[in-house]
Amino acid sequence: MSIRIGILGYGNLGRGVECAIAQNPDMELRVVFTRRNPESVKILTDSAEVCSVETIEDWKELLDVLILCGGSATDLPVQTPKYAELFHVVDSFDTHAKIPDHFAAVEAAAKKSGKTAVISVGWDPGMFSLNRIYGNAILPQGKDYTFWGRGVSQGHSDAVRRIPGVKDAKQYTIPVEKALASVRAGKNPDLTTREKHTRECFVVLEDGADKAKVEESIKTMPNYFADYDTTVHFITEEEMARDHSRIPHGGFVLRSGVTGWQKENQHLIEYSLKLDSNPEFTSSVLVAYARAAYRLSQEGITGCKTVFDIPPAYLSPKSGEELRASLL
Amino acid sequence: MSIRIGILGYGNLGRGVECAIAQNPDMELRVVFTRRNPESVKILTDSAEVCSVETIEDWKELLDVLILCGGSATDLPVQTPKYAELFHVVDSFDTHAKIPDHFAAVEAAAKKSGKTAVISVGWDPGMFSLNRIYGNAILPQGKDYTFWGRGVSQGHSDAVRRIPGVKDAKQYTIPVEKALASVRAGKNPDLTTREKHTRECFVVLEDGADKAKVEESIKTMPNYFADYDTTVHFITEEEMARDHSRIPHGGFVLRSGVTGWQKENQHLIEYSLKLDSNPEFTSSVLVAYARAAYRLSQEGITGCKTVFDIPPAYLSPKSGEELRASLL
Repeated sequence: MSIRIGILGYGNLGRGVECAIAQNPDMELRVVFTRRNPESVKILTDSAEVCSVETIEDWKELLDVLILCGGSATDLPVQTPKYAELFHVVDSFDTHAKIPDHFAAVEAAAKKSGKTAVISVGWDPGMFSLNRIYGNAILPQGKDYTFWGRGVSQGHSDAVRRIPGVKDAKQYTIPVEKALASVRAGKNPDLTTREKHTRECFVVLEDGADKAKVEESIKTMPNYFADYDTTVHFITEEEMARDHSRIPHGGFVLRSGVTGWQKENQHLIEYSLKLDSNPEFTSSVLVAYARAAYRLSQEGITGCKTVFDIPPAYLSPKSGEELRASLL
Repeated sequence: MSIRIGILGYGNLGRGVECAIAQNPDMELRVVFTRRNPESVKILTDSAEVCSVETIEDWKELLDVLILCGGSATDLPVQTPKYAELFHVVDSFDTHAKIPDHFAAVEAAAKKSGKTAVISVGWDPGMFSLNRIYGNAILPQGKDYTFWGRGVSQGHSDAVRRIPGVKDAKQYTIPVEKALASVRAGKNPDLTTREKHTRECFVVLEDGADKAKVEESIKTMPNYFADYDTTVHFITEEEMARDHSRIPHGGFVLRSGVTGWQKENQHLIEYSLKLDSNPEFTSSVLVAYARAAYRLSQEGITGCKTVFDIPPAYLSPKSGEELRASLL
């Protein structure tokens, strides 16, 4: 029997989860819950229903795992604890600084309901975190580096769009090659914000807007751009549609460390991602961890978990025997 | 209280384990067991003893984990099941094709004794295996690639040393840049043995040996060299000592896959290692998994495990709370 999945929220992430489920024969999408009018939401999976989130309690016995596809700012802090009272859940909560609070809230709810919850699943937090923990455990005398990009930052793109005179904008975060090279060479550099990443903006202006003024507003924006070297390109709406419609991202996690009685040997562990679609990759990780959540629940393991707590084998549809023979 | 560690076998790997323990304040080396005369073995840790392996049973209650540092060909198939009857054990058994048999033998022994055993720990099998399982689970529609090097292959170096006229030899395995580039470009190539790796040999000849004949013998050696493009350099003993005394290694695991309803988005996951010392890095992984073995044993989880079965958090000395706040 397949693992029966529900999705809450049908944006880029929810749609990505739907696509990922279709690649996993042991899983089945049963329902997409939406806050919109269900009749206005067209999904890709013929066999699944679209229902109002108001009816979600009716599905309590009909789903194995609910994948929460809302945003970290306002949706997940409410939704994950709330729905962990009814379902085994997985989310991609990615506000790093607030993870301890989110964990506490979800842990309390899931422990009370006897459900299994997995939070902060994706690539950062998620796969990058895994590489940080493995790197730290193996090379305790070493240094961590995380670089993001080249990829679209939604938050920075939104910030540019809020500037008067800007009709549309996309912002790319770009790791500085020189900094990466220095880490790879084992130099253990201390890098400032400016030395690690540059920012590149593609902007469509409103008619009559002042280029120089917009560029100045971007480059001096506190927190978002002031601490970075930023390049601004003004382009047409057509160019925006043609060249910037995808949501690529990626990045690098490096652990540089030493071993030996005299620390005489250097080692570099490097993990990198090059993603055509940030939300679809995140969704693919969510679906693998939905499988893990289901398995944990079957073993009676309840409460809130993160990627740190879950044995890798739980992500795979293969048996232990198959895994040892084929992937070890 | 520290985790009390014993080492069996004091070659490159055992010495590497000793060095790694010194970097982990929650662990303590208590004893090195040797098949040699213990008085002939000088170790680095003042507070640890060197004992004959004949006395190992006397240590049954005095160690938390025994790390087995023998070879995969003849030592570990015997030692790991044998000592899993007395201790929680960790080994680096790396003959991929024989892992299922080794697992079965160790599982039987550890289940019977109620001990915890972790086998096939290191980087391949080990960290590379982890990256294969995560990559496969996240991108089920994709392809795996593993490249090794640039690094010293002990087996190939030994094979060259056995050729008449060869006094000393080191063999480096080198990934072919063009093949790596093609994988990174998302081309999903089917690669032959020759297309993936080249081999480079540095050879010191005995006086009067025939260069051409030795070179021919190397390049045509079945299994080891015949299927590869091999370069042979003849060097002096001094050059060998000066330029080839280290045991570097490394490699790459890549997972290239697609997502999206129409498989329209490509993704590349790449993990790589650049290691100054192959045995010391392997040892560092062994020590992290010794911590995991200890923790599993404390929870009463017995039997044979691999890296696939162990939650990443078990490798780290930090608490779940610290990990979520600092590395997630």
